Amino acid sequence: MQGTILIVDTIATNRISLKVKLASAYYKVAQADDIRQAIAEVGRRPPDLVICALTLPDGTASDLCKGLRDRFPSLQLPVLAIGNRDNADSRLAALEAGVSDVLLKPLDDTLLLGRVRSLIRARNAADEWQMRDDTTRALGLAEPAADYAPLGHCVLLHDNSATTLGWAHGLRPRLRARLSLAKPDDAICEIPADGPPDVFVLALPSDPNGATAACRLISALRANAHTRHAGLLVVQLSPNTALAATALDLGADDLMTDGFDAAEMTLRLHALLRRKRTADQLRATVRTGLKAAVFDPLTGLHNRRYAMPHLARIAERAQETDRPFAVMVADLDHFKQINDQFGHAAGDAVLVQTAQRLRDNLRGMDLIARIGGEEFLIVMPGTTMAEGETAAARLCADIAGRGFHLPHSTQPLRVTISIGLAVGPKRGEGQMDSVDRLLAEADRALYSAKVHGRNQVTLSRPAA
Amino acid sequence: MQGTILIVDTIATNRISLKVKLASAYYKVAQADDIRQAIAEVGRRPPDLVICALTLPDGTASDLCKGLRDRFPSLQLPVLAIGNRDNADSRLAALEAGVSDVLLKPLDDTLLLGRVRSLIRARNAADEWQMRDDTTRALGLAEPAADYAPLGHCVLLHDNSATTLGWAHGLRPRLRARLSLAKPDDAICEIPADGPPDVFVLALPSDPNGATAACRLISALRANAHTRHAGLLVVQLSPNTALAATALDLGADDLMTDGFDAAEMTLRLHALLRRKRTADQLRATVRTGLKAAVFDPLTGLHNRRYAMPHLARIAERAQETDRPFAVMVADLDHFKQINDQFGHAAGDAVLVQTAQRLRDNLRGMDLIARIGGEEFLIVMPGTTMAEGETAAARLCADIAGRGFHLPHSTQPLRVTISIGLAVGPKRGEGQMDSVDRLLAEADRALYSAKVHGRNQVTLSRPAA
Repeated sequence: MQGTILIVDTIATNRISLKVKLASAYYKVAQADDIRQAIAEVGRRPPDLVICALTLPDGTASDLCKGLRDRFPSLQLPVLAIGNRDNADSRLAALEAGVSDVLLKPLDDTLLLGRVRSLIRARNAADEWQMRDDTTRALGLAEPAADYAPLGHCVLLHDNSATTLGWAHGLRPRLRARLSLAKPDDAICEIPADGPPDVFVLALPSDPNGATAACRLISALRANAHTRHAGLLVVQLSPNTALAATALDLGADDLMTDGFDAAEMTLRLHALLRRKRTADQLRATVRTGLKAAVFDPLTGLHNRRYAMPHLARIAERAQETDRPFAVMVADLDHFKQINDQFGHAAGDAVLVQTAQRLRDNLRGMDLIARIGGEEFLIVMPGTTMAEGETAAARLCADIAGRGFHLPHSTQPLRVTISIGLAVGPKRGEGQMDSVDRLLAEADRALYSAKVHGRNQVTLSRPAA
Repeated sequence: MQGTILIVDTIATNRISLKVKLASAYYKVAQADDIRQAIAEVGRRPPDLVICALTLPDGTASDLCKGLRDRFPSLQLPVLAIGNRDNADSRLAALEAGVSDVLLKPLDDTLLLGRVRSLIRARNAADEWQMRDDTTRALGLAEPAADYAPLGHCVLLHDNSATTLGWAHGLRPRLRARLSLAKPDDAICEIPADGPPDVFVLALPSDPNGATAACRLISALRANAHTRHAGLLVVQLSPNTALAATALDLGADDLMTDGFDAAEMTLRLHALLRRKRTADQLRATVRTGLKAAVFDPLTGLHNRRYAMPHLARIAERAQETDRPFAVMVADLDHFKQINDQFGHAAGDAVLVQTAQRLRDNLRGMDLIARIGGEEFLIVMPGTTMAEGETAAARLCADIAGRGFHLPHSTQPLRVTISIGLAVGPKRGEGQMDSVDRLLAEADRALYSAKVHGRNQVTLSRPAA
């Protein structure tokens, strides 16, 4: 099944003829008479795309688009409108309201299906990382991008600068974005110093050679690391529906079939700029989210989730090479009192400075992780008990030796740390595996350091 | 710039003629004479693609491919080989060794550039979530997929079943995957009960109508939510380089220009199945990683990173609606001793069971998060101090009332919890914002509960 499309039109014959076209391409079709019914239907079974008449009994395509956005903001449902040649004004109003495109009657099947494929493909690509579940909401991915004036950089690609100079002249007074001109080849071989453009506009001629060159350029823009995420608006200099569908299938994001119009192009560019910014934000959030999966956001150290499998890998390698490695569990002394007396911000400052001192005193190859509130795990490959003890004593001394700076205080705070040390590899025996035994030993040593007065290193002694 | 390509060929005229073709399409080109030089060059400046002669002075394309994989496993660099018609055996060996494709001389520019675009595009798409930094390594994304026999489901698409029945007959004895046949239309309208296929094979006829239909099907497969990640191998029934390049640009993953060959198709299908599995794993890991960004993996509760902004949003809404909400900070008593006496596994079991009891006693709309080792944050919208106190007392009683089960022990352990309770909204005054003040109040109340003997709820009293 290709996806579900909701047709909204009060005239039954229009709905039926559209349904036949869409069903022949294996789309599932739902129907509604007017805006009210459409919104109810979307609430029941959200489709992948809405196709509606430009005018409906209880409003326009613009009203439907706004209604869907208000009621189902996280759906970000694309709307395609169908109108007549004489609807020029309401066509622009629809584009301004967020309708993805307005196709004019008589409908061409090739172009219609090309458009539908393109809109559903874009939606699937965006959905991929949206993951409509709690994770999304939690990361803030589902929030629509702020709707303020688009800023960004549009580039008009041209072989004939007279044409595009005219376009630029028409666009400049309206467009809320930087506009520049470039030769098509430059689009893929020269990246401006301030980063790749946000949107390209490409003219698509109808003569076979020109059309082939333009289509190859679309493919090249989509294959290029710097331009693959840019919006791409293709402008046909003369209508050719098969070519239009191919341009969309090759990766054009939007298409004008009837040449240049300053008002219309401005609206389409604003929409592409908005979409680009939303997608950029989404990618950035996913990157941040992934970093959060393995790093402790406060200290920048690795977290427990990362540390445990990493420790297991170090232990494995040590067993293979028969070289020792040291494991320390370190815990700040009386940390709870710092939090209670000076507040969470002070506790956070102590943790951040502790992390920095640990980093300063350890090697790049050592693993340093925050595995609990005030608890740190340190793993040093290729390290004997004696070497580990020297390193741990140095850490202990560096924490106790200099005061910690608290926010809103000039008085440095004295902080100490207790460290339990164990050395692997342990041969696996009994129920626990070797890593768990090693951690338990380091934990026991830490406990002993705490019991014997804190601010000290205790070595693990084999259990009796 | 389109990307960097390393040309490896001992014959200078071959290198120069290839360099001219690639430079005209704005690729940056590096050169090497042999495998040794090529590996050194990749070590210095990793390219996006390697194009090499099928035979080199110090080995074959297969050797180069293996050498690159051994030396730079995380690069996953695509290799394209160029050979002669009489190299049939070494051609298959190269495909088996992991070479992406072997193009035969004389080279057709259109097909060459189409292939190059397609390989670089696939590489960019894969790279997007690889994020060549510490995050990747940490999440295990960079690890290449295990190289065992591919399993999966390939579907041969056909209008003429005689042809594809013959293909299936040739493939079945060799292919390490399930194989079935379907009509092209069925590929996009019928999803098998056991999920979408992993790879489609599509015949591409040269007659204009057949070619157009096949190209539209490629686009439809790429636009469809269920098939967009499937591998797609296109088989040309008669050579047509322009059509081949278009098929690749529309999203075909691999292409055979000279019709069916059972041995060759088997190798290509195995490669596509492997690539599909790697991509599936990558997406799954990213999903898991993102979940880890907002959930505590041990208890399944939300983590601190999620809880803090969520609490801020609840506070905002409460201020808008002027309705109260309760904030609890709960901390297991003497948890460190449980860990120290019974080991980390016992501590983990107590945390998991605590989380379950909190969930059992709270509403779906309440926020429950693990914000520290043994510390939990609970936020109850629309809750007064009296209601919050009742809820907190119930939690306290449920933790203390039933023993906790430890692993490897039949003796249940008695565990208690202390809870500090504060109620918002607070009007923001002074330096701290209202959420911080509320948390500080709950923290102070918790401290007081601990000081006064633990296993109790303490309400926040306005500070003197």
